[in-house]
Amino acid sequence: MTSPVIAVVGGGQLARMMAPAAAELGVRLRVLVESPDTSAAQVVTDAPVGAASDEAAIRALIAPPAGQDVADVLTFEHEHVPNALLTDLIAHGTPVRPGPHALVAAQDKIVMRTRLHELGVPCPQWRALPASVDEGRVALEQFLAVSGGEAVVKLARGGYDGKGVRVVSGAGEADDWLVAATEGGPPVLVEEKVPFRRELSALVARRPSGEVRAWPVVESIQRDGVCSEVVAPAPGLSDDIDARAREIASDVAEGLDVTGVLAVEMFEVPLDPADPDGPTTVLVNELAMRPHNSGHWTIDGSVTSQFEQHLRAVLDLPLGSTEPVAPWTVMVNVLGSERKVLTGALPDLFERYDSARVNLYGKGIRPGRKLGHVNVSGGDLDEVRAAAKGAAALLMGEETA
Amino acid sequence: MTSPVIAVVGGGQLARMMAPAAAELGVRLRVLVESPDTSAAQVVTDAPVGAASDEAAIRALIAPPAGQDVADVLTFEHEHVPNALLTDLIAHGTPVRPGPHALVAAQDKIVMRTRLHELGVPCPQWRALPASVDEGRVALEQFLAVSGGEAVVKLARGGYDGKGVRVVSGAGEADDWLVAATEGGPPVLVEEKVPFRRELSALVARRPSGEVRAWPVVESIQRDGVCSEVVAPAPGLSDDIDARAREIASDVAEGLDVTGVLAVEMFEVPLDPADPDGPTTVLVNELAMRPHNSGHWTIDGSVTSQFEQHLRAVLDLPLGSTEPVAPWTVMVNVLGSERKVLTGALPDLFERYDSARVNLYGKGIRPGRKLGHVNVSGGDLDEVRAAAKGAAALLMGEETA
Repeated sequence: MTSPVIAVVGGGQLARMMAPAAAELGVRLRVLVESPDTSAAQVVTDAPVGAASDEAAIRALIAPPAGQDVADVLTFEHEHVPNALLTDLIAHGTPVRPGPHALVAAQDKIVMRTRLHELGVPCPQWRALPASVDEGRVALEQFLAVSGGEAVVKLARGGYDGKGVRVVSGAGEADDWLVAATEGGPPVLVEEKVPFRRELSALVARRPSGEVRAWPVVESIQRDGVCSEVVAPAPGLSDDIDARAREIASDVAEGLDVTGVLAVEMFEVPLDPADPDGPTTVLVNELAMRPHNSGHWTIDGSVTSQFEQHLRAVLDLPLGSTEPVAPWTVMVNVLGSERKVLTGALPDLFERYDSARVNLYGKGIRPGRKLGHVNVSGGDLDEVRAAAKGAAALLMGEETA
Repeated sequence: MTSPVIAVVGGGQLARMMAPAAAELGVRLRVLVESPDTSAAQVVTDAPVGAASDEAAIRALIAPPAGQDVADVLTFEHEHVPNALLTDLIAHGTPVRPGPHALVAAQDKIVMRTRLHELGVPCPQWRALPASVDEGRVALEQFLAVSGGEAVVKLARGGYDGKGVRVVSGAGEADDWLVAATEGGPPVLVEEKVPFRRELSALVARRPSGEVRAWPVVESIQRDGVCSEVVAPAPGLSDDIDARAREIASDVAEGLDVTGVLAVEMFEVPLDPADPDGPTTVLVNELAMRPHNSGHWTIDGSVTSQFEQHLRAVLDLPLGSTEPVAPWTVMVNVLGSERKVLTGALPDLFERYDSARVNLYGKGIRPGRKLGHVNVSGGDLDEVRAAAKGAAALLMGEETA
């Protein structure tokens, strides 16, 4: 008997951040990385190189030809995996968590909306556009007419971090995507542009035995469609909305049979558009079935991090406490940098912010790229937020006040 | 420009626990491991195999023949390194932290006692025994005569975890060590058997620029000469003794020019032997110039762990906050196990203790061996301690009440 082996598809920062959790639990990670120098490959000793779309590479990840131990479970740091293969792996005895029947709702926004509707989960108004330029344009025009003249067009598959999402106000503004859809590209859907007050994220984990644990609901602040800052818990959130958001996330986890970590991104919207400061409700925006940027605060701010919880969940181990360790934790992303080397910021950063928890992903610097994050915890939200933003700004090479 | 490379001598659990800290800081570890499957080798991608006593291996650790980046600093997870080589490395431009002039006081207990005496640090009564069986026996007899008939004989070098330490009540009981000393074995010293109330440990970090930070002083509970449990902070410690213990540790760090983490193990003893429950003072027992078992609680119980702090200190980065994140943290060691595989305990353990922070070292199971530890934090010391002990007992395969 030996300790469990968890196979992970994808070698980015999410797999990298699983490594400390695996080392502590005494379980072994085997990560399929895109190249030998990816974020995860730098810190995972068992990191074969291969593409997530390569069936042979995924089969070898589970049962290596060199005779290492067969993996006990297969999981993912992104959703871009071939579902037919996953179904076949399950049929031949490899647990795949989350399973392809759940994962498809994170891969395809039309499937996601359809499933959430079936579960009675509140979502923005939406419709799938026909895969024909003429019919698609007509459908979009009709949708715009009843939506105040503006709407959000999305590619059903392949989008992330603001890519594959476009706000339109004219029926012709999605023609390129409609053309692509007729030529084998991803289907297109349109959603109402929700007049949200802010964005929330409800993070839960669920294991095959059915146990579900939810972290406090957080506020997520986006810049150019990319998460820039997360405040845990969401300031001033009413008990009702907190409970409702957690309940929705748990319902989605159970309804879709998700195993592992599930992030449910939501809009908090006024119940009455004429009273923007009045009572609110929530609508589900997006799902992610893996550790998520809105949960990075848990590494330093919660008894159990989302990364350890994901590993526990996919191994069907009892889940850990999701209690916060401080009244407030703020996470700020490092998005691109003017610096040549991020670690060059550390002398200044640690001099100014001695409680800052820095996490750098070992990635090459490119404009806007997620290169790391900073967490700061404490009792005074303004101070905590200022420190997290100040520290991240130093890593980005920005001047700070 | 690239991120720093820290070279570490020794591939045990202390180097292993540096890996998550290095990954988060975005710095690179290169660890000299004893074999390809040591505790650290399992989780460090750059882990050449070699002995700590092998000069060529240490030179290659700093400047690999394959042309990887030269290490920015050399540090250690144990003290068993050849000092002449370290001195030569420094002369040729490699920072060695802690330096050999400091390290010798952690390698040789006679040097340690001599240096501490020079610094005015309170220690037990002691003397070095002459390296002759006859003269050594006479000296030991004289020492016993003025020490109440019992004393502690120690090998000056090479001891750890209760090895190389022996309580004696007769002058002939150290003959084997005295013989060995005449044949090139380590020198022998004798110390008074201190009637301590309990053992404390003061953990500090110091960087070359001079900054020193101290964690709260902890109580350390030994079983058969091996640390079994640590309570942070030490319960009921007077403000005076807390301040005094921190001051001693800071003085030692400065006086010996230690860089990195320094653990100062102390005895808390009654000022008046006739009043065992009255006011106390502290005497220094041992020093360790590296992360130490009495600091494992900081991984989950302090803003900055001793492992991150050690890396920051040896890179001369500003040190992090040493504030605790909870009123109490208790660490219990997993010392040996009746189990075949430690991870087999996790289903039961996490079911019963959902706040337990488990850390397993990936080592083969042998009786009494340090295989891992459990931290539990919280507001109620009795509950926290019961959970940490219960969780560790499950890992050891013991029945619990």
